Amino acid sequence: MKVFNYRKVKAEDAGEGSFKTTVRWLLTKDLGAENFAMRLFEIEPGGYTPFHSHPWEHEVFVLEGEGLLVGEKKEEKFRTDDVVFVPPNEKHQFKNLGDKTLKFICLIPYKHG
Amino acid sequence: MKVFNYRKVKAEDAGEGSFKTTVRWLLTKDLGAENFAMRLFEIEPGGYTPFHSHPWEHEVFVLEGEGLLVGEKKEEKFRTDDVVFVPPNEKHQFKNLGDKTLKFICLIPYKHG
Repeated sequence: MKVFNYRKVKAEDAGEGSFKTTVRWLLTKDLGAENFAMRLFEIEPGGYTPFHSHPWEHEVFVLEGEGLLVGEKKEEKFRTDDVVFVPPNEKHQFKNLGDKTLKFICLIPYKHG
Repeated sequence: MKVFNYRKVKAEDAGEGSFKTTVRWLLTKDLGAENFAMRLFEIEPGGYTPFHSHPWEHEVFVLEGEGLLVGEKKEEKFRTDDVVFVPPNEKHQFKNLGDKTLKFICLIPYKHG
């Protein structure tokens, strides 16, 4: 078993199409998590993740802040203590709508489809 | 896509071997989460989950409070913002060591082994 503060894991730029967003890969195959990975995203005010889709789902828990989940046909606000589910192959984007850092956990499967 | 506050999901007793502990099944197959489930546990002061093992892992993020993770060979304290990983088949128990409710997310795979 392993216990560590999430800040022990390096925050990396979330990559192309994202803005003012970092990701920490908290639990991965390297640590023995064979089935799904846990990441923590931090989006600064004005920041966002790419508007994209992929063949795996997102399971999200919002730790802090407020944001907008943008889909192809609708948008929905979310905030601290919200749960978000994005099914496989649905276009989506997370935007920070607030004036402090938006922080959420986002989990993805290693095998899918 | 779905967005909801975690309190919308009913807190159920966590079952045999647990004490002062509830679980909310936030994301499950019923909602289209085919690969892994997200649950939220709340353990009142003095409460605990069963000391047990099973052939699937736990991926945990501690939302609030402080507790003790009991294993077969060691114990480790944890608190708000900690990440906990319990590998498959390792005996484990979560205890609340604090004076307020201990709250954490715990995810499990649907397929394993």
